[in-house]
Amino acid sequence: MSQLEQVPAPALPGAQYLAEIREQPAALRHLLEHRAEFARVAEAAAKHGTGIIRMVGHGSSDNAASFGVYAFGLLPGLTAARDSISLLVYYGAKVDLRGSVVVALSQSGQTPDVLEYVERARQGGAFTIAVTNEAESELARAAEAVLPLSAGAELAVAATKTYSNQLAALALLAGCLAGRCDELAGLLGEVADQIEEQIPEFERLARSFSIPFTAVARMFVIGRGPEFATAREIALKLLETCQIAAEPLTATDLAHGPVAALDPLFPVWAIASEDETLGVVVDATVRARQAGATVVASGTAAEALADAQYLVPVPKPRLPLLSPLLSVVPGQLFAGAVARAKGLDPDKPRGLSKVTLAR
Amino acid sequence: MSQLEQVPAPALPGAQYLAEIREQPAALRHLLEHRAEFARVAEAAAKHGTGIIRMVGHGSSDNAASFGVYAFGLLPGLTAARDSISLLVYYGAKVDLRGSVVVALSQSGQTPDVLEYVERARQGGAFTIAVTNEAESELARAAEAVLPLSAGAELAVAATKTYSNQLAALALLAGCLAGRCDELAGLLGEVADQIEEQIPEFERLARSFSIPFTAVARMFVIGRGPEFATAREIALKLLETCQIAAEPLTATDLAHGPVAALDPLFPVWAIASEDETLGVVVDATVRARQAGATVVASGTAAEALADAQYLVPVPKPRLPLLSPLLSVVPGQLFAGAVARAKGLDPDKPRGLSKVTLAR
Repeated sequence: MSQLEQVPAPALPGAQYLAEIREQPAALRHLLEHRAEFARVAEAAAKHGTGIIRMVGHGSSDNAASFGVYAFGLLPGLTAARDSISLLVYYGAKVDLRGSVVVALSQSGQTPDVLEYVERARQGGAFTIAVTNEAESELARAAEAVLPLSAGAELAVAATKTYSNQLAALALLAGCLAGRCDELAGLLGEVADQIEEQIPEFERLARSFSIPFTAVARMFVIGRGPEFATAREIALKLLETCQIAAEPLTATDLAHGPVAALDPLFPVWAIASEDETLGVVVDATVRARQAGATVVASGTAAEALADAQYLVPVPKPRLPLLSPLLSVVPGQLFAGAVARAKGLDPDKPRGLSKVTLAR
Repeated sequence: MSQLEQVPAPALPGAQYLAEIREQPAALRHLLEHRAEFARVAEAAAKHGTGIIRMVGHGSSDNAASFGVYAFGLLPGLTAARDSISLLVYYGAKVDLRGSVVVALSQSGQTPDVLEYVERARQGGAFTIAVTNEAESELARAAEAVLPLSAGAELAVAATKTYSNQLAALALLAGCLAGRCDELAGLLGEVADQIEEQIPEFERLARSFSIPFTAVARMFVIGRGPEFATAREIALKLLETCQIAAEPLTATDLAHGPVAALDPLFPVWAIASEDETLGVVVDATVRARQAGATVVASGTAAEALADAQYLVPVPKPRLPLLSPLLSVVPGQLFAGAVARAKGLDPDKPRGLSKVTLAR
């Protein structure tokens, strides 16, 4: 039994959720032990043809897919898209899938329509890869290749370490497709160290401003590029654990309408990166401040967002693409802290179960 | 000067917005006069190669692109995706664009990063099509082909008739690519008649329950398949005009976390279609009701959502794919009615201007 599987009984509300957030560096290192499998699957995919990478998943898995667009686009220079599940599964569209690679993301490996998508895509000639924490699941059996998330059992309903391992799996697969398997594994190992080192400070920061946010009912979470995935995932954690109506938006889309809804009790969590999109995120934050919104500045370039009320800086990874692995962590912790401050149990959000069998 | 361009000065808050909603049937018929251009552009695109249709846009234009995924998938059987703008524009990803068709959606034809995307994609070998209401815009000049939205001047900040004409343009282009240009034009003409016939009843319904929603701060809008575009667009109208934090979700994604945030003052607007996704939307609505949420049942299969507090039925078009052109209308009207009941002016949402130059 590995250390990851020895999960103690939760003592306090959210103890399990918090424990799993803290396990992220260990889970990430565990994933990296499987790098040979990633190299093998990448080789098989390349042989089949990678005209388009079709990613499918729901919830956190779909958020991770938003990151995949950038991982595949920037490392091997491939077109990757979050594909429509319903087009194939419900409407039976006659789309040519040959030369496509399917990356199906599901923590449990049981998501019904993701499973059905994989079955149909495989029949249609796509090379299908299941990325799942359950290597014996139906999804794993349905796909031609399996990449295990190896995050250890995740018991809290709100996903944390399986999400970050999905990001890592996508980055590693993309790296292998670019012939940079070992390099990416090394870079991801460094990120695991950075997360581990930073967690105590992230925890302190998240607790430090959780109380004022117990009065908040709605939020926007904005990011651009690879950090749009982080915006989506932090918004989902806030929805799941804190009953805050948190909506993710790209920094640019904020200006195309939603900014009109902002007020001081409608805060914006902004993720700024030290990259080509920084100007866009800075502009969006200025706009949010002009609308009177409270702003939380986060990301590797948090300091560039002047005039923000709260600052949650994130250390820079050596490869900027990998920053979402770091910048999601303070959001996960913040959602847990706000939930506890509101008397909610982040381990057991109302009306949810760990395995979502909803179609 | 055509009749569409004779826009009277607005008298009451939201008069312009309401006038433009009512102009949708006329705007749609105006678009259909251009069917020969659609046939020509489709032919040129097919000649170039349609390996993947890359759609780009922000706000309502990006919502219309969600519909495009189904229009291109179901009519000519092509893969269409909402492409990442930042990957190309900010990160300069080296993705092979030859054999791709770009469909760039922008009402004003001035959206800076959409323009830049088109310039780069054209250099990279894609066949670029601008779909815009401004045939003399920079975007129109930058693209290889232009499809005019022909909606007439749109003056209210919140888009309505340009959105529905974007849907129609995508359906018509997809129809032409499937060799069904005249058939689609005919079907869209029928939809124009249906909208016209239904508007008085939609207006009556929208007004009938706008008052209780003035107390609402957050909503989900759910749909699946082609109607996910409608969910996104209705949510955006509510954000823009009513300051309601309205988040669009696929019916399936509601169960993957967000359902935990619902309560009686956090209503769900559900769009149900008489098609293969009906069961999914019914299940999601049951889940929302179990969480205590107030439900508005809409769409062509609204009656199938038992237990909903409000019913907003939508007539069925002959081609089910086209239902989003109809089902968005009651949402547009409802947003306007709630805004007016809250003392807001839907013509001039706070902090927005008609042409969004935000990057």
